[in-house]
Amino acid sequence: MLGRTYEDQNCSAARALEVVGERWSLLILRDALFRDMTRFTEFQRSLGVAPNVLSARLQGFLDAGVMELERRSGAEQPRYRLTDRGRDLAAVVIALTAWGDRWAAPAGPPVVFGHDSCEGEAGLALVCDRCGEVLHGAGLMARPGPGARPDQAVRST
Amino acid sequence: MLGRTYEDQNCSAARALEVVGERWSLLILRDALFRDMTRFTEFQRSLGVAPNVLSARLQGFLDAGVMELERRSGAEQPRYRLTDRGRDLAAVVIALTAWGDRWAAPAGPPVVFGHDSCEGEAGLALVCDRCGEVLHGAGLMARPGPGARPDQAVRST
Repeated sequence: MLGRTYEDQNCSAARALEVVGERWSLLILRDALFRDMTRFTEFQRSLGVAPNVLSARLQGFLDAGVMELERRSGAEQPRYRLTDRGRDLAAVVIALTAWGDRWAAPAGPPVVFGHDSCEGEAGLALVCDRCGEVLHGAGLMARPGPGARPDQAVRST
Repeated sequence: MLGRTYEDQNCSAARALEVVGERWSLLILRDALFRDMTRFTEFQRSLGVAPNVLSARLQGFLDAGVMELERRSGAEQPRYRLTDRGRDLAAVVIALTAWGDRWAAPAGPPVVFGHDSCEGEAGLALVCDRCGEVLHGAGLMARPGPGARPDQAVRST
């Protein structure tokens, strides 16, 4: 994990990157979130990543409370299960996917996220938690939150 | 950039990570997106990152078309300006921030994104592009898109 690297950043994005910012982390989460993978060998086959790297990433997720280990009886492999904290990273993977679909998918999106009760597709949008309006970049303002340090200035976007 | 590492993944999230998956990349983008930073020295002061690393990241963004260089006259430092492709990464930073706010901000969010025409706060939500319903994880299905390979199976979430 990147803890030491980013620790003087009072920023929630930096804190999230301490958990998911290492190489392969977000693709492991993608497989756990959207391909139902739970076993070491499944992740390894999907990603082709070196076993020591995969092992370090999964241990990091256990340490960070993003996954928990479910031990199985006998010779069966343990399962790495996402916790609520881990499932809540879906929006990060979907945001990356949406960008890649728009800017780096010459053949079109490999995967779409469909709404199963109509024929639509789900996309990420910024929604106001008070009036419910879908915002489009304009009308959006970064402002200090309750955890801001006195010296932290933010500017409007 | 991570090009070689992820190149056999037919996945838009992996392609996005080829552009923004290196250490510090997303925090540089955060500063460019939400703190109006454009100069080498501004990024360096904000992040405390080694100059050779910062230089490599900024060059990578230029190569990937996420930023463009605006040269200035005389001794003034050149400016690194986000392109449309770069500004479109805002949702990734906001998704990371939202996760960090919920799971890793004991003192509360350092920054909130406010809706300036009411007192609400903007949050990311999954919205159906057809019926407009805000989706909450359930009711969401991953399915093959136009760029899927024949061997690519996806499972519902």
